[in-house]
Amino acid sequence: MEINTGDTAWVLASAALVLFMTPGLALFYGGMVRSKSVLNMMMMSFIALGTISVSWVLWGYSEAFGESWNGLIGNPFQHFGLDGLLGERVFGTIPAAAFVAFQSVFAIIAVALVSGAIADRAKFTAWTLFTVVWATIVYFPVAHWVFAFDGFAADKGGWIANQLKAIDFAGGTAIHINAGAAGLALAFVLGKRVGFGKDPMRPHNLTLVMIGAGILWFGWFGFNAGSALAANGTAAVAWVNTLAATGAAMLGWLLVEKLRDGHPTSLGAASGVVAGLVAITPACSALTPVGSVVLGVLAGAVCAYAVGLKFRFGFDDSLDVVGVHLVGGLVGTIGIGFLGSASAPAGVDGLFYGGGVDQLWRQVVGALAVLVYSFVVTYVIGTVIQRTMGFRLETEAEVAGIDLEEHAETSYDINGLASGRFGSGSGSAISTTATKTHEGASA
Amino acid sequence: MEINTGDTAWVLASAALVLFMTPGLALFYGGMVRSKSVLNMMMMSFIALGTISVSWVLWGYSEAFGESWNGLIGNPFQHFGLDGLLGERVFGTIPAAAFVAFQSVFAIIAVALVSGAIADRAKFTAWTLFTVVWATIVYFPVAHWVFAFDGFAADKGGWIANQLKAIDFAGGTAIHINAGAAGLALAFVLGKRVGFGKDPMRPHNLTLVMIGAGILWFGWFGFNAGSALAANGTAAVAWVNTLAATGAAMLGWLLVEKLRDGHPTSLGAASGVVAGLVAITPACSALTPVGSVVLGVLAGAVCAYAVGLKFRFGFDDSLDVVGVHLVGGLVGTIGIGFLGSASAPAGVDGLFYGGGVDQLWRQVVGALAVLVYSFVVTYVIGTVIQRTMGFRLETEAEVAGIDLEEHAETSYDINGLASGRFGSGSGSAISTTATKTHEGASA
Amino acid sequence: MEINTGDTAWVLASAALVLFMTPGLALFYGGMVRSKSVLNMMMMSFIALGTISVSWVLWGYSEAFGESWNGLIGNPFQHFGLDGLLGERVFGTIPAAAFVAFQSVFAIIAVALVSGAIADRAKFTAWTLFTVVWATIVYFPVAHWVFAFDGFAADKGGWIANQLKAIDFAGGTAIHINAGAAGLALAFVLGKRVGFGKDPMRPHNLTLVMIGAGILWFGWFGFNAGSALAANGTAAVAWVNTLAATGAAMLGWLLVEKLRDGHPTSLGAASGVVAGLVAITPACSALTPVGSVVLGVLAGAVCAYAVGLKFRFGFDDSLDVVGVHLVGGLVGTIGIGFLGSASAPAGVDGLFYGGGVDQLWRQVVGALAVLVYSFVVTYVIGTVIQRTMGFRLETEAEVAGIDLEEHAETSYDINGLASGRFGSGSGSAISTTATKTHEGASA
Repeated sequence: MEINTGDTAWVLASAALVLFMTPGLALFYGGMVRSKSVLNMMMMSFIALGTISVSWVLWGYSEAFGESWNGLIGNPFQHFGLDGLLGERVFGTIPAAAFVAFQSVFAIIAVALVSGAIADRAKFTAWTLFTVVWATIVYFPVAHWVFAFDGFAADKGGWIANQLKAIDFAGGTAIHINAGAAGLALAFVLGKRVGFGKDPMRPHNLTLVMIGAGILWFGWFGFNAGSALAANGTAAVAWVNTLAATGAAMLGWLLVEKLRDGHPTSLGAASGVVAGLVAITPACSALTPVGSVVLGVLAGAVCAYAVGLKFRFGFDDSLDVVGVHLVGGLVGTIGIGFLGSASAPAGVDGLFYGGGVDQLWRQVVGALAVLVYSFVVTYVIGTVIQRTMGFRLETEAEVAGIDLEEHAETSYDINGLASGRFGSGSGSAISTTATKTHEGASA
Repeated sequence: MEINTGDTAWVLASAALVLFMTPGLALFYGGMVRSKSVLNMMMMSFIALGTISVSWVLWGYSEAFGESWNGLIGNPFQHFGLDGLLGERVFGTIPAAAFVAFQSVFAIIAVALVSGAIADRAKFTAWTLFTVVWATIVYFPVAHWVFAFDGFAADKGGWIANQLKAIDFAGGTAIHINAGAAGLALAFVLGKRVGFGKDPMRPHNLTLVMIGAGILWFGWFGFNAGSALAANGTAAVAWVNTLAATGAAMLGWLLVEKLRDGHPTSLGAASGVVAGLVAITPACSALTPVGSVVLGVLAGAVCAYAVGLKFRFGFDDSLDVVGVHLVGGLVGTIGIGFLGSASAPAGVDGLFYGGGVDQLWRQVVGALAVLVYSFVVTYVIGTVIQRTMGFRLETEAEVAGIDLEEHAETSYDINGLASGRFGSGSGSAISTTATKTHEGASA
Repeated sequence: MEINTGDTAWVLASAALVLFMTPGLALFYGGMVRSKSVLNMMMMSFIALGTISVSWVLWGYSEAFGESWNGLIGNPFQHFGLDGLLGERVFGTIPAAAFVAFQSVFAIIAVALVSGAIADRAKFTAWTLFTVVWATIVYFPVAHWVFAFDGFAADKGGWIANQLKAIDFAGGTAIHINAGAAGLALAFVLGKRVGFGKDPMRPHNLTLVMIGAGILWFGWFGFNAGSALAANGTAAVAWVNTLAATGAAMLGWLLVEKLRDGHPTSLGAASGVVAGLVAITPACSALTPVGSVVLGVLAGAVCAYAVGLKFRFGFDDSLDVVGVHLVGGLVGTIGIGFLGSASAPAGVDGLFYGGGVDQLWRQVVGALAVLVYSFVVTYVIGTVIQRTMGFRLETEAEVAGIDLEEHAETSYDINGLASGRFGSGSGSAISTTATKTHEGASA
């Protein structure tokens, strides 16, 4: 079959957009922590760009999209090292390698998302190991369940896509419920930060949070509209729904803040954006734009409340991976069963559009299957790492600041700004802190 | 008709690029204000992403591109909720929904641009209301005038596009003159900031301004080259002209600074970039690359002087929406009448290329019509809001800082950086400031 | 010939991505210097966006892609002002203007890259002049050597592409070895910064460095995969290889840091990303994904050591243009001779794949030719500028801070943050610093 250049252009551009989301996430998360741990927070996302890129090329793709073993996992040896995917091979209307590219960045960001639940307190080496193990045992198989359609990249694909037929256009289950459940499990394994619920721990740089949210929204058009794997009407509808739901979710979140707390905050706006993006991810091919607005408002409002759960139940999901990604993912995935419209590309009426409960139970089963699998297996992985090499940082190091402990760096040295005025003698109180730079290479 | 996948890919990618411009604008504007108001400044852009997304889906698109009522406004009920645009419908060579997507982000940024004129002093609720009212009464109709061509999305379109036939390829009138005139009106309605013309009010973070300018330039290729609605030679020429004029405008602005003030500044570079982008927006299909360089140098130099008007005439257009967007928009729109070349895609010779004054008066009439309509109607909207719910913030709140007053947040807490050195006892003087975080949800 | 819209969409999108890399580089570099010189550092990149855009349109394109004079340089008069490239002309499957657009941004970033070698100490006017001279005498001709293939944009192209037939898919020689060698030359001409090797000079804002690295990676997909000039299988393979090598290089760099210094740093992660991107640039069409992983690990590890060379040999390549771009460019360009695989799009087996030394010597000759030409000519240009107008800033100005001296600005004024708490009386110690803003226009 011949490739379609327009479809290929869109998928390659979308893949780049989704790659950009992980640095965007690093900023979004990094701005939310205290300045003594921003670098570590960003590094948890960046290292996933390293480890998962390599894992994906070597065995991850094959695990996710190789010939299926009973709908549960792809054959990891079939395309080891992407063997057989470089040449003229075409999936649908695009080169096989373009599909490999597009899916690679989903794996990366799924892993990076988890890190928000364990801010400020995870040993970096342990986290690095975790990224590879989690991707291999949890993400790649779940991606197989959800994204591997029979007859596309292999004859036989995953059970959620082909047997259950739950709708998940761009990864509400495979990415967001998955990462959210994993984050919850790790939050239990690692325990709370020193001072959790007492110290303010407020975001040290809200402009970073806003930049991050902006990048995430931008990249998410690749995530959602790119999931059509073609530059067609479905992609265009997914684009519009992604805009509508996200704008509405921001309004929903801010409205809750305004009514409950008296002030709409920038942190709320940024969080509402992400909640909307998460919720519309599985649903962007299944709803009308008006349905997307409804889903968005709902997701924004529900998540604005959900992020308070951690204080009530006492788990330190530091940056609200559960409240935003798990809850938002559930709202979107299950919401299809209610708000789905046959006039949207997916062509399925939900309960509110007269469609019965047939799609609804499929959505619920798909969501729960991923939730339970991810939570349980992640809990086991986390516990094994904690009991062997140790996952949680020492208390003194955590209080002193994880950036200094794990990376021998501190984030900012902008006091030096005044050095022109005060002479080089005064300098900056901070600038003498021992810090690794490239100069380490001279030693 | 069948869709062309290459054109669709380009329009969807361009729409994402233009969406990214609004967070970029938030940074560009946010860096220019004092640190006590950066969050509010960013929020004024972000809230437009929320309100206008929803307005666009519900009635805005239909107002702009529904069947025309006398060339003045589209039928707002025809496509309410984007009814009838999801399916196989094709506009030109792209899915109708792709056109809906592309135009949506123009509406958002037009609204966000206005906020620069009233930095630091607008009640957030009033601004939020304003965004919806202004879009509905000013932007959507003006977009209809300029962008709705007969026979594209509807049989009958707007008067500037079809009767006057002024050239405005990507929105010099509909976006920039429009937003600039509206900003001027609001600057009058809200009055000057406390200390305007006396206190320095210098940009608190020029790196944010530079990031913002970079994102704007990047996204503007979608804005301008995407306006071809196809991946063709016109798009490519628009791309090249957008580069040439913008680079030249930066040089023009910096040259004025160097000669006048002795130093080329980073704020000048960033502002010159935006001035060039504004000026080339209407003209990018009508000029040769050399004509674009000339237009760019001119726009940069003229705007570098124009931003001083506010001090001479005593209106507090805080972030130079008038000096850059209104003036730059006029330079570009009217400049077509002089610099247009028949060898460019638009195919019209301007006065300097031997083309007479026919195109010139059309450009002037189009520009003035938008300017006057926008200024007058915005002034009325602003005044009504000011007299009813109040638009201007109280003086004490403004002096204390709008971030704290309107959003219960402060932007940065990077003193905590030193906590590793000084122990947790010293902490940060700022970190105890009452600030809303997600923890509000626990109350 | 007709244009292919999918190919055109991809090339236009890629061109925008590559444009975005230069502001990204400004952040990457800007974060690495001290806060008293961040604006100047960013301005060195931004001014290249101005000067090279205009130079490219006027004569640069024609020098690089006009009809060849003996394979050494294109006829600079043939397409002066892009004459003859606006209309229906098609190169390959895309409009001529799309090719002009794509190549323009390569010229810009090549120039901007050089600035990293002379941080904190170059007169801005001298640097501005240098950008134009260097592009005209060094970059445009070298781009001709490497990128001008016979029969594409002109009948006769450059000697490296057509006679030597060294493989350089996206610019390992033309961009990275070239900029790296030029940086080395300028580092010698300008000499070391005051305090080099003694004062810490640590990065003032590592979050900027991380944002910059993220933008660079994102944009680099346009750089590499866009160099296919088509949305096809070659572009897709280049995309995947760009991911694989870059992720692997980050791991390689961090591993060296961990083993050598005890801590993997965020600066190392960001630098490893760039090292990987540089190394895979020439090679992304010539390697398998597994080969790309190997090349990436190697590039990351080698560059992690190479950045220490400046301390050993005593040249102040401030931000490691030599250690990352020259060394990384050599690793990638010469690496093709070892790791090239006939199963990749370029279809050439390297030494390790049984291909003999034929391709290897071509790679070495191409790399050395560019290295020597660039170093020698840049050294001469730099010396002439230094001896005439002066290139190096005065010592007192350098110590006081180049931002204040050359741009009359300081980067941050975030102390004002506390003004809500301490009243306007205390203000910020820094906010009274004389600083140019738009208010200069009122004088």
